[in-house]
Amino acid sequence: MRTLEWEDNKLKLIDQTKLPDELTYVYCETYQEVITAIKDMIVRGAPAIGVSAAFGMALAELAGENMDDVAVEMKSARPTAVNLMWAVDRVMASENALEEALKMFQEDIDTNKAIGKYGSEIVDGGDTLLTHCNAGALACVDYGTALGVFRAAHEDGKKIKVICDETRPRGQGASLSVWEMQQENIPVKLIPDVASGYLMSKGLIDKVVIGADRVAHDGIANKIGSFMVALAAKRFDIPFYVAAPFSTFDKDISIFDTEIEERAAEEVTHYGGSRICPKGTEVINPAFDIVPKDLITGVITEKGIIDLNSIENFEDLF
Amino acid sequence: MRTLEWEDNKLKLIDQTKLPDELTYVYCETYQEVITAIKDMIVRGAPAIGVSAAFGMALAELAGENMDDVAVEMKSARPTAVNLMWAVDRVMASENALEEALKMFQEDIDTNKAIGKYGSEIVDGGDTLLTHCNAGALACVDYGTALGVFRAAHEDGKKIKVICDETRPRGQGASLSVWEMQQENIPVKLIPDVASGYLMSKGLIDKVVIGADRVAHDGIANKIGSFMVALAAKRFDIPFYVAAPFSTFDKDISIFDTEIEERAAEEVTHYGGSRICPKGTEVINPAFDIVPKDLITGVITEKGIIDLNSIENFEDLF
Repeated sequence: MRTLEWEDNKLKLIDQTKLPDELTYVYCETYQEVITAIKDMIVRGAPAIGVSAAFGMALAELAGENMDDVAVEMKSARPTAVNLMWAVDRVMASENALEEALKMFQEDIDTNKAIGKYGSEIVDGGDTLLTHCNAGALACVDYGTALGVFRAAHEDGKKIKVICDETRPRGQGASLSVWEMQQENIPVKLIPDVASGYLMSKGLIDKVVIGADRVAHDGIANKIGSFMVALAAKRFDIPFYVAAPFSTFDKDISIFDTEIEERAAEEVTHYGGSRICPKGTEVINPAFDIVPKDLITGVITEKGIIDLNSIENFEDLF
Repeated sequence: MRTLEWEDNKLKLIDQTKLPDELTYVYCETYQEVITAIKDMIVRGAPAIGVSAAFGMALAELAGENMDDVAVEMKSARPTAVNLMWAVDRVMASENALEEALKMFQEDIDTNKAIGKYGSEIVDGGDTLLTHCNAGALACVDYGTALGVFRAAHEDGKKIKVICDETRPRGQGASLSVWEMQQENIPVKLIPDVASGYLMSKGLIDKVVIGADRVAHDGIANKIGSFMVALAAKRFDIPFYVAAPFSTFDKDISIFDTEIEERAAEEVTHYGGSRICPKGTEVINPAFDIVPKDLITGVITEKGIIDLNSIENFEDLF
């Protein structure tokens, strides 16, 4: 299952807003359509956004646009996603946007397979593994980061069970991660986000693996709710892993300086098309959470597992 | 606003499943109808369930039912709610079920006003206060426990702001607590449950006040999600209070022995009538959480504020 593909000079995307009920595709013929697809979360997940943006840059180059202007516009589509910046900068530094995008496409698949290989080592047969949001194939070109770890463990013959947080407000755990695990025939259950602490207190979760939108020397940024899961895991000494490619790493910043995007009120006031609160209710809707490194057991990358707490010099990783 | 009232030998209940869009009433003429109303959460919240059950017992006595059988049946309607057991036992020990129920009705109002009076003392002008679920007037006969604290602080002229957790899976924070605060003209905002840790990390929450379904010497039981809020509050040294009447106290048990009710899968798989995950998805849906006493700053009762961590002999409270 490819989340995105280059087909007849168009970017073909699975429309993730229609899952799990319909597997339909959106075709982007202009870079503006790619920006819209990123903003509307037709494509989401840090690596998938990065590669989509690269193909968006390719569409712009093929159309003879002013690439400097397009680069600025493209980067503003999802300000928290460091892969987006990385992808745009990489295309800008290349000779040929389309060739570079196709290279990044293949690299993403190879990277996730490598993350899965390293990640599978921390999974034991019989483990029940919790994840939050969707760091799956649908967040990447294919295979996934956190869910790639589960796929690899499953392919290695380990009998695992997966528990997916619903992931309010947009429910990517319920609609996407559950669906991906079902496609792989991995036993999966859905819980409301509020329940993971309780399950951990009862010994029903062995390990947590989530993705990341950004990794820095002092922690990671990921979907809102990740921090509270990490706190609960810490309380019960449950290993808490982050699966993320190096393209997500930022060597220059403190994670606490991450600009957190505030999303539309309707994501909170409505669900499944229905209003769940009184009309006109005000909301606060931050999209991302910061998980400080003291709560993180390890970051599973394509080059191995990194413990942010024991690294002498973060910059040496690059 | 009375959540429940005795009218023409019937129990009149606000139908809380219809809020916040419609303020409608359900009339129970038999004890079985009261049990159904408790099970279907037409009436919910520990104190409201207790007083409703007492009126249910009165309906049974007026109908000449076998009261011992009815008592067993009534207690099974919501096994976690200790007030339900307390209320049924109290009616069974009385001479006249209806007189006892009416007494409990008035006591509940007086108790909540007293909780509000003590609770207001911990609130400072300018505070932003977080609550989870609905420990409001709608959970009681009137006024509320956690929201009663906010009402009392507001009546005392303190300028407060309230943030309500949505409270998945049933959304009582979004549909009930937000509505109650709006009725009182107290500034209120709604957040997804996953966001409270983030807001605390940014210094945007000064105190947490929640209700409880059960208080024991070593902690409290309350709506699922309460534990993770308490963990986040502890991380940032934010005072975490529980507002609950003595009828919620259980002197004999450890809170960790509380039987946690598992509710229907549909509460998690559906929202606002729409399915949010693939068809046939399995779920885990525990209704309650345990918050151990090390995470609780104080329990606000009708007799004052109790610190479970510094009490020598819990039994002396009774």
